[in-house]
Amino acid sequence: MNINSLDAIALSQKIKNKEISASEVITQFTDNIEQQNLTLNCFTAILKNQAVEEAKNIDQKIAKGETIGILAGVPFAVKNLFDIEGIITLAGSKINQKNTPAAENATAIKKLNAAGAILVGALNMDEYAYGFVTENSHYGATPNPHDLSRISGGSSGGSAAAVAANLVPFTLGSDTNGSVRVPAALCGVLGLKPTYGRLSRAGTVLFSNSLDHIGGFTRSVRDMAAIFDVLQGEDKTDPVCTSLAPQLCFDKLNGDISRLKIAVAGEYFQKGAETEALKAVETVAKILNIKETINIPEAHRARAAAYIITACEGSNFHIKNLRLRPQDFDTATRDRFLAGAFIPNTWYIQAQRFRRWYRDQVKQIFQKVDVIIAPTTPCVATPLGQETMNINGEEILIRPNLGRFTQPLSFIGLPVLSFPILRPNKLPLGVQLIAAPYQELKILQVAAFLEEKLNI
Amino acid sequence: MNINSLDAIALSQKIKNKEISASEVITQFTDNIEQQNLTLNCFTAILKNQAVEEAKNIDQKIAKGETIGILAGVPFAVKNLFDIEGIITLAGSKINQKNTPAAENATAIKKLNAAGAILVGALNMDEYAYGFVTENSHYGATPNPHDLSRISGGSSGGSAAAVAANLVPFTLGSDTNGSVRVPAALCGVLGLKPTYGRLSRAGTVLFSNSLDHIGGFTRSVRDMAAIFDVLQGEDKTDPVCTSLAPQLCFDKLNGDISRLKIAVAGEYFQKGAETEALKAVETVAKILNIKETINIPEAHRARAAAYIITACEGSNFHIKNLRLRPQDFDTATRDRFLAGAFIPNTWYIQAQRFRRWYRDQVKQIFQKVDVIIAPTTPCVATPLGQETMNINGEEILIRPNLGRFTQPLSFIGLPVLSFPILRPNKLPLGVQLIAAPYQELKILQVAAFLEEKLNI
Repeated sequence: MNINSLDAIALSQKIKNKEISASEVITQFTDNIEQQNLTLNCFTAILKNQAVEEAKNIDQKIAKGETIGILAGVPFAVKNLFDIEGIITLAGSKINQKNTPAAENATAIKKLNAAGAILVGALNMDEYAYGFVTENSHYGATPNPHDLSRISGGSSGGSAAAVAANLVPFTLGSDTNGSVRVPAALCGVLGLKPTYGRLSRAGTVLFSNSLDHIGGFTRSVRDMAAIFDVLQGEDKTDPVCTSLAPQLCFDKLNGDISRLKIAVAGEYFQKGAETEALKAVETVAKILNIKETINIPEAHRARAAAYIITACEGSNFHIKNLRLRPQDFDTATRDRFLAGAFIPNTWYIQAQRFRRWYRDQVKQIFQKVDVIIAPTTPCVATPLGQETMNINGEEILIRPNLGRFTQPLSFIGLPVLSFPILRPNKLPLGVQLIAAPYQELKILQVAAFLEEKLNI
Repeated sequence: MNINSLDAIALSQKIKNKEISASEVITQFTDNIEQQNLTLNCFTAILKNQAVEEAKNIDQKIAKGETIGILAGVPFAVKNLFDIEGIITLAGSKINQKNTPAAENATAIKKLNAAGAILVGALNMDEYAYGFVTENSHYGATPNPHDLSRISGGSSGGSAAAVAANLVPFTLGSDTNGSVRVPAALCGVLGLKPTYGRLSRAGTVLFSNSLDHIGGFTRSVRDMAAIFDVLQGEDKTDPVCTSLAPQLCFDKLNGDISRLKIAVAGEYFQKGAETEALKAVETVAKILNIKETINIPEAHRARAAAYIITACEGSNFHIKNLRLRPQDFDTATRDRFLAGAFIPNTWYIQAQRFRRWYRDQVKQIFQKVDVIIAPTTPCVATPLGQETMNINGEEILIRPNLGRFTQPLSFIGLPVLSFPILRPNKLPLGVQLIAAPYQELKILQVAAFLEEKLNI
């Protein structure tokens, strides 16, 4: 039985129906991971033995007729900035190699375990999550499964590529300025960055406190809804985690989306991109029969402010190592952290002041519309090792510009799903579905509709 | 009839009872202000004509038997950083002299007007609220009414002195690190700094956004409760103003305080002060029969962090003028603003991170106690023009050290009332009554009890 391409829900159904045991699933998946990873370099740790033990437990529960979770027996993996009990949380760095192993799993892993999912490994990323390419100088690049000469995007590149290559049905990553959405788009999978504070970040290595979110990667909308539901809920150990009641989505995916007002993001979100990236948005707009265009004011300033806050808060976390052992950083992240350390405090404060103004402006927009769509990236995956790209005749840097369309949205914590646009003989792209804070259900419902129409 | 020493409630009673007209009250008060201000230098603007007109309106309403507010006919004045329609909001500066006059009154003034109170003027302060002495190089010092050779404290020095000198029954000021409480203590009046976000700051000149509060000065607890009640309520034009329902206090001042657990702040709050300041706390502790001492951890760091945040946020507001016309600032504030501009962003971010930790620690303390008492200032009012003072054999700067006991509390937005300790033939002192956020009622009830026992 070829189970590698099944989504999590289908896989756990087969396990529940005893068509296949959890142990067989885990063995098959981990064997495949070990083999494929030699080429794909998604995993920095494979937890085969531990996973096999967990699978046995699941199988015993099934044999006894005990209740098992919605993700029972489903293998998953996490970006290596999530704490995994007993192993060292690298966060893509060499510096962290000397840390003591994590004493317990991150809250997100605990919740997924409780729903029956089985952790099989940790995934590659840009060092300390500061990048959009996953070309990590310590652990190597994670190439794009659609074209091994190209990037997977980042910083959750391992998380996106592992799902795209069917190594696991779903993974977790984190998103500060686009680190879930960018690699999801470039690898052609779904990537959800929920509302800021919606999901617990406890047990993850932070990059920029006021911007960090955890998020998920899947190949189906129902999988995304299932893991989002499992991950929700208050967590007292994360001070920014909301105490709002969870909004369960899995059973509501078929809600009528004709009630939703959907608009295309104009101006800033229609410039600085390859024609094909804008065409992907047009395709989705056509399917959704969108007539309206809406402008998010000062998005370019939002991006600039997000840069400043990221660099300042990021360098604050690493200031001691930047002073004591700068040589041990990946140069690509170190130089940006150092630049961040020298930013005047007034820029940071001004960026936070602007952020409040901008949040209020965008809040007003969501009085008029429910969902906004925009490109995820300005281009398809670029070649590994390449530093610049040409967009509409202008030679620009790849690393900073991959986040052009994602940064102004995460800046104010909006929930965004990058929906994959898969095209025959072409590299994938993504379209962002954006809603007001805590309105994840709306974007998942639109995604479910698109999935049916596009038959991905 | 000598009405100058009456509190607001007594005064408005007399007006309501037609023992005296609002017009007579306003004329008598403004005449007195004009005369006394030559010596006391509390007022930077006296609004006699406008006040007389408003008084006529009140009198007409009374004649017609119309409903009038709790503060009907009572004169009051505000620190000159509150917008007053038609006049220029100086905020203690020379730079603002060229601004256009305010288009409307600050929210706080509107609310007090609606309750019948009559604005009679604007009050002196440290430039841009950055000081504890009210020795303003542009508008002169406001001397202490108890000893004209000494400071009134600051930055709301004019507000405290005006109440202490019976020029008005109550005034408004603002408190960032102690700017209500310090002058209240040194002038021997009540000064309330409510919870951060409790009262609207709309229409005031901000100094440090995340630390600024507006507050009031009175000579009686019932007056404080009355104006606090009037000032409460959501204000959409102030983004930090709470949407929580007001907690009215005026009718609840006689609540049984034996239900409240009260403790004295230990360690940090019992050091670095003159013996007489600590004795004032002992006096209050004895009256309240307090046995327990509680330690607020890392209060010294809280003070340091409050300094950093104040300097950074303060300089951000003035960065353009600091670049273009530094010579137009009061040198005492300019040099601190400039120093703030050069603070590394990582200090600011670290201070904010510490703040979250500290807030959580103090929150836990308030699980065990309701009210904490501590000195307001480490000493009585110091001589005008003096830069240092000797505390327990150590020569220290006056300006920064007057806030030693106030800064660690406003840092996390706790509501604090400085209760005056008036002593025969000695200068006044203050004791801070501190509660958990939004528990102003508790401190007002304790203050009402103290007022009765001390017969102030």
